[in-house]
Amino acid sequence: MSFPHTLVLGGARSGKSRHAEALARGTGLERVYLATATAWDGEMRDRIARHRDERAADGWRTVEEPLALAAAMEREAAPGRVLLVDCLTLWLTNVMLGAPPDAARSAVEAACAALAAAVPALAGPAVLVSNEVGWGIVPDNRLARDFRDAQGRLNQHMAESCGRVVLVAAGLPLTLKGTPA
Amino acid sequence: MSFPHTLVLGGARSGKSRHAEALARGTGLERVYLATATAWDGEMRDRIARHRDERAADGWRTVEEPLALAAAMEREAAPGRVLLVDCLTLWLTNVMLGAPPDAARSAVEAACAALAAAVPALAGPAVLVSNEVGWGIVPDNRLARDFRDAQGRLNQHMAESCGRVVLVAAGLPLTLKGTPA
Amino acid sequence: MSFPHTLVLGGARSGKSRHAEALARGTGLERVYLATATAWDGEMRDRIARHRDERAADGWRTVEEPLALAAAMEREAAPGRVLLVDCLTLWLTNVMLGAPPDAARSAVEAACAALAAAVPALAGPAVLVSNEVGWGIVPDNRLARDFRDAQGRLNQHMAESCGRVVLVAAGLPLTLKGTPA
Repeated sequence: MSFPHTLVLGGARSGKSRHAEALARGTGLERVYLATATAWDGEMRDRIARHRDERAADGWRTVEEPLALAAAMEREAAPGRVLLVDCLTLWLTNVMLGAPPDAARSAVEAACAALAAAVPALAGPAVLVSNEVGWGIVPDNRLARDFRDAQGRLNQHMAESCGRVVLVAAGLPLTLKGTPA
Repeated sequence: MSFPHTLVLGGARSGKSRHAEALARGTGLERVYLATATAWDGEMRDRIARHRDERAADGWRTVEEPLALAAAMEREAAPGRVLLVDCLTLWLTNVMLGAPPDAARSAVEAACAALAAAVPALAGPAVLVSNEVGWGIVPDNRLARDFRDAQGRLNQHMAESCGRVVLVAAGLPLTLKGTPA
Repeated sequence: MSFPHTLVLGGARSGKSRHAEALARGTGLERVYLATATAWDGEMRDRIARHRDERAADGWRTVEEPLALAAAMEREAAPGRVLLVDCLTLWLTNVMLGAPPDAARSAVEAACAALAAAVPALAGPAVLVSNEVGWGIVPDNRLARDFRDAQGRLNQHMAESCGRVVLVAAGLPLTLKGTPA
């Protein structure tokens, strides 16, 4: 396939989602937005609904899947259609919060490995958004340290599975792997 | 103009200010240093004064403006003169601390939009220094989260307004937009 | 020497150590692993020993030196041998924890300057791993702020002393200085 699976990395408010949307739009293919956000309260539910409506007006079909992401990607991927997964960081949060306390690390690693393994076999291209979270001081609390370790490992796995990896800062892309879009 | 407005991004102690100073010096133009730091106490006041004297010995004229930065840039910009603004992160801190509590976000966004809009119309070139602050774990406290969101959005706006954007790590520049200096 | 001293920078779980190991392995030279980790408890001691055994099976000789790193590098460096120092961030932690409380900053700066000065004079090539820690929000506590300042300054010094500097994200290298490996 000419458009490679693309991992878009960046910090908070780096413009990574906007860049990923532009990449997906640029394919000219049918667009499916795979949202991993979970509504914790009414305000969040309203915000998610509003974003979904805005995307619909812009030509996106939205699929919400906070946890079973690999299965959703396999189900939705198709030739002539591009998937935008936004984002792996919220998905990883959901996976970690739902993992069994006595086997959290192995459950999380298995889920991440399964997700990375699913990508190359998809029937159509995917653009996946993920956060860089490991460029600061070591966090005080254990959960935050575990999360940044898991996120870093996930980003490495996904980078291996994708044909293109882009790092975004201040809205500007820097291609780390593959050819610039 | 041959020297484009340049945004210099980087983490703490990345060498971004030193790189920005070298860029400004390299223009061969008259140099004005627009300092946004605010003295909270006597020690800070002494430190600011010492830095100003060191820069004067090195050929800089220093202008201090913690808040009305767009106006100061418009007033000081001139053909044959380069402005160095150090830094947008301290300016944003001042703007956020001074914003009305009931309309903080809209006031901050208006100030950032006005600053970004002012740059392309300046009568001479500017080099602007700003921090990358969103590459770590989500901060615990609300103010820190709001700040990193605002800083990320400001950096995106400024990157659109500048002809060149440079990311600095370990003192080494990586050009994200425009031609390397 | 054809293989330049190489500084490998990156965030937590960025794949920087794995990349550094691959660079050292690629030289085809005899390999010495200079470990700076300190065992705080029995679990850490076991982990360090396990890693040392794994590396031995892979052709590395391990030398442990938490503090006197410049001397260890000078002693171990030799033509036909490459040193891998993993990592400068743990070393800096050890230096800061061991510094005299009333002169911490000057002691740390002297140690960092001495380390950077030692590199160009080594009898054989070195690959040095260090963390980027300054891309987040300003930390709440003083020690963390001091650490990230010291780490940033150290990375700048080391980048000046090395012929090649590589920034790693998601396991992918970005060459900031020198020619890509």
